[in-house]
Amino acid sequence: MRLVLHEDPVSGNCYKIRLTAALLGLPLERVAYDITRGETRTPQFLAAVNANGRIPVLQVGDRMLPESNAACWYLADGSALLPHDRFDRADVLRWLLWEQYNHEPNIATLRFWLRVTGEDALSDLQRLQIAPKRAGGAVALALMEAEFSARDWLVGGAVTIADLALYAYTHVAGDAGFDLADHPAVQRWIARIEALPGFVPLHVPPPG
Amino acid sequence: MRLVLHEDPVSGNCYKIRLTAALLGLPLERVAYDITRGETRTPQFLAAVNANGRIPVLQVGDRMLPESNAACWYLADGSALLPHDRFDRADVLRWLLWEQYNHEPNIATLRFWLRVTGEDALSDLQRLQIAPKRAGGAVALALMEAEFSARDWLVGGAVTIADLALYAYTHVAGDAGFDLADHPAVQRWIARIEALPGFVPLHVPPPG
Repeated sequence: MRLVLHEDPVSGNCYKIRLTAALLGLPLERVAYDITRGETRTPQFLAAVNANGRIPVLQVGDRMLPESNAACWYLADGSALLPHDRFDRADVLRWLLWEQYNHEPNIATLRFWLRVTGEDALSDLQRLQIAPKRAGGAVALALMEAEFSARDWLVGGAVTIADLALYAYTHVAGDAGFDLADHPAVQRWIARIEALPGFVPLHVPPPG
Repeated sequence: MRLVLHEDPVSGNCYKIRLTAALLGLPLERVAYDITRGETRTPQFLAAVNANGRIPVLQVGDRMLPESNAACWYLADGSALLPHDRFDRADVLRWLLWEQYNHEPNIATLRFWLRVTGEDALSDLQRLQIAPKRAGGAVALALMEAEFSARDWLVGGAVTIADLALYAYTHVAGDAGFDLADHPAVQRWIARIEALPGFVPLHVPPPG
């Protein structure tokens, strides 16, 4: 089945899918959109790719699958990156949901505001949200630090897509003003992920 | 396996799990906590139930599964409420993630602020977020209206936990100030869910 990733190459949510595919050795065609230019809000995109106006979307044959963590799940289903045990599978899903509710809206959004939008261009509402998002992100990183002080991987003793989904924005949390030096267990987990055979980084360095 | 739901009985996120269990005919023990009294932030709760300080948590034997939609997935796995087809399963997950990212933080949070916290007790930041959450909730309901104008159920032609998860806060969107009279296809879908054999309502009326 032909796999096409509709993505913005700078997005960590899109990167999760590329990382999952790379670890599985799955070839992925890529179509790039620039979200800062509204390229995912055009009538054509909304009709043909995602009515929700967001990337990433994984195209499987001619079917469209939005939501980054659902795309990782589809790719990993049947592989070692998604356990077979019924409880463990639900536990992977628990972390995928936690990532989208407690981690990404704090850490990824802060990173986008500070690195892409720019602090001077933020609205009053965005500016007021910086402090609570910084607090929420700190709570999320503290919870991960406690987890990785007790175990190497989030679910079942081996790397799963729960780890990959959380790696995407955790390893660049410094861009959002978080200090990973205070999170040694998280740092060791980051090093374990980056040592996986087939690992690819978020930003591929330019050639030459 | 003994199933215990750690919940706040007034929470729509907890209700999703009760509804899924009821449709499957699974008995569920229930332990109640009052989130407005901080009962999910006690040291005992954080250590024994959920380090993230939130309900619902589904206890399966002696293992704890936080995140409402992960609990629905666990209960439904292997049943007709969760399809067997690989793409359809990922598509169910797509809606579960969309619910937690685009629907619940707008509609459920607004409902909580207006019905539980009370408009007079809101902070300045919460008050500023009312307008964007109202806009985000309207976009989510419009997307559902478009979906249900084209099909009866979200995935694969039959009811799944994607529908149940979205029903929880959609059918009470009026409490958050949204007008479902403008969403006839959503209203027909709500009626289909409420006609399912074994359906239980969010609020069980008091006896007598």
